[in-house]
Amino acid sequence: MLALVLDPAPRVVRDHPEPALRKGEALIKVRCAGVCDTDLQLARGYMGFSGVPGHEMVGEVAFCEDARWIGKRVVADINAGCGTCAECIARGGHHCSTRTVLGIVGRAGAFAARIAMPIACLVEVPPAVSDDAAVFAEPLAAALHVLDDLQGTPNRAIVLGDGKLGLLIARALAGAGVRTAIIGRHAHKLALAKGAETHLEADVPASLAGADLVVEATGSEAGLARALELARPRGTVVLKTTVAAKLTLDLAPVVINEIRIVGSRCGDMTRAIDALARGMVDPLPLVEARYPLARADEALAHAGKRGTLKVLIDV
Amino acid sequence: MLALVLDPAPRVVRDHPEPALRKGEALIKVRCAGVCDTDLQLARGYMGFSGVPGHEMVGEVAFCEDARWIGKRVVADINAGCGTCAECIARGGHHCSTRTVLGIVGRAGAFAARIAMPIACLVEVPPAVSDDAAVFAEPLAAALHVLDDLQGTPNRAIVLGDGKLGLLIARALAGAGVRTAIIGRHAHKLALAKGAETHLEADVPASLAGADLVVEATGSEAGLARALELARPRGTVVLKTTVAAKLTLDLAPVVINEIRIVGSRCGDMTRAIDALARGMVDPLPLVEARYPLARADEALAHAGKRGTLKVLIDV
Repeated sequence: MLALVLDPAPRVVRDHPEPALRKGEALIKVRCAGVCDTDLQLARGYMGFSGVPGHEMVGEVAFCEDARWIGKRVVADINAGCGTCAECIARGGHHCSTRTVLGIVGRAGAFAARIAMPIACLVEVPPAVSDDAAVFAEPLAAALHVLDDLQGTPNRAIVLGDGKLGLLIARALAGAGVRTAIIGRHAHKLALAKGAETHLEADVPASLAGADLVVEATGSEAGLARALELARPRGTVVLKTTVAAKLTLDLAPVVINEIRIVGSRCGDMTRAIDALARGMVDPLPLVEARYPLARADEALAHAGKRGTLKVLIDV
Repeated sequence: MLALVLDPAPRVVRDHPEPALRKGEALIKVRCAGVCDTDLQLARGYMGFSGVPGHEMVGEVAFCEDARWIGKRVVADINAGCGTCAECIARGGHHCSTRTVLGIVGRAGAFAARIAMPIACLVEVPPAVSDDAAVFAEPLAAALHVLDDLQGTPNRAIVLGDGKLGLLIARALAGAGVRTAIIGRHAHKLALAKGAETHLEADVPASLAGADLVVEATGSEAGLARALELARPRGTVVLKTTVAAKLTLDLAPVVINEIRIVGSRCGDMTRAIDALARGMVDPLPLVEARYPLARADEALAHAGKRGTLKVLIDV
């Protein structure tokens, strides 16, 4: 089958072996995939990844043991836990120590004609949700996950960063009814933060500080320090981006102001699909370009240009 | 009155003006005070402090408007909020932006014959609690505060650091019924962590990792990175020590494992006195030395020696 393969040569679209189906897994024909910054980091060698990247996808079940799934349009939780360890049983597979992660850890990803995923990870996509919207289910689940693990709904949130993730988080928080401000560097991108108050970084009013929740989605090393300045005492700073570099940081304000810094990764796909079906969040304005799978190398190159929003790959 | 004054000359015990009583404040005759690492940091210039340090104290109310307090033995919440701002009303004075903090911010401290504190900050000490125990109320409140803001009681906690704060936290957590391990560098100090499992840092079994709660109380720059290794996915790392230096840190594991890093400062003094009165925690074995106020400079010098436990100042 056709796939974008990062190894041995980077970003080559070529013929690649079909995924081998293990027990309990479905073979999914990918319909559309989205390029995430993590894919770009993997292409640069992050986590020593080799193989097929891609974890934002919507597809159609081509085959599985449970015939009821065949032909259904689906998205998938990208974390495939063992299902039997204490962690899987207590809290699901997101932190199973032997998990595979679609297109990231030990499992070929969605920049390919077909993928294999456990049936347990699948979420059906209702007709009201288009392929282009459904492909946002994974980052939207991650965006809504920001609201998990807080004590109650925040009165006021700030999103730092007007990249595709920051904009999606701002739209998701605003859609969830949270009073949200977003701080970025580009007026034309901030204009896409529907429902949120927007501020250019150079022009943030002092009154904006003191938020209950600050989401760090700049992907820059300076983001966390800035987030700590904007959170209220006992407020929460959520880290969404894995900066593949060491930060230098003064943590005294964290202790003095009793800030909570929460790492946040993947969320609940069912909730994301539900939010899309109800029209709570519209991700479509964030699509900037699309390429066929045969030109997936160009898709990654495009996505890698500074300031690019979502690039989709049609399979 | 006699006081240890950090400014103009450091650590000079000399005659110092009596505290001026503001409305709603009590004049407290200090009976005993404890030396905290924060005092040593203040003496080294931390926060630009000048004046009288000292915030761990037990005393007797000498004068206040409400005559019912006069003669009572008390400890005091060290944070004196304005009492009228939104923060004070919603969450108490610990994070009031105009607060004074006994011996730390804008309020002369307890290494002195007398201090002034708002009546609202006072907690009466019952006869069952000795002066030497009551002087631990402030650090014990901070130790028990580690358990606040968690979702439920942790199944298993690790305390990093066998200094006086780490030992007190270990005793407090064990006293609160949490299965607690403490990791330190000195067998003779670990022996004081009553109720906790003890491990020398060089000899920590791999099975210890995966704790629900890790408390960083080493005061060292390497402590947080070590704490992140020991917490389970979605676990909590509590920062107790303000390292007056910038840390260099790889935060990717925080996001991938969705760790919560929580800064934790002061706790509830009423709860601490109650824990002491019920015998839940016995801090007395942590007392290493005591000096009269006239020799408070020696007390600080002693406390500043590496590995020293609690040094008390009798007033």
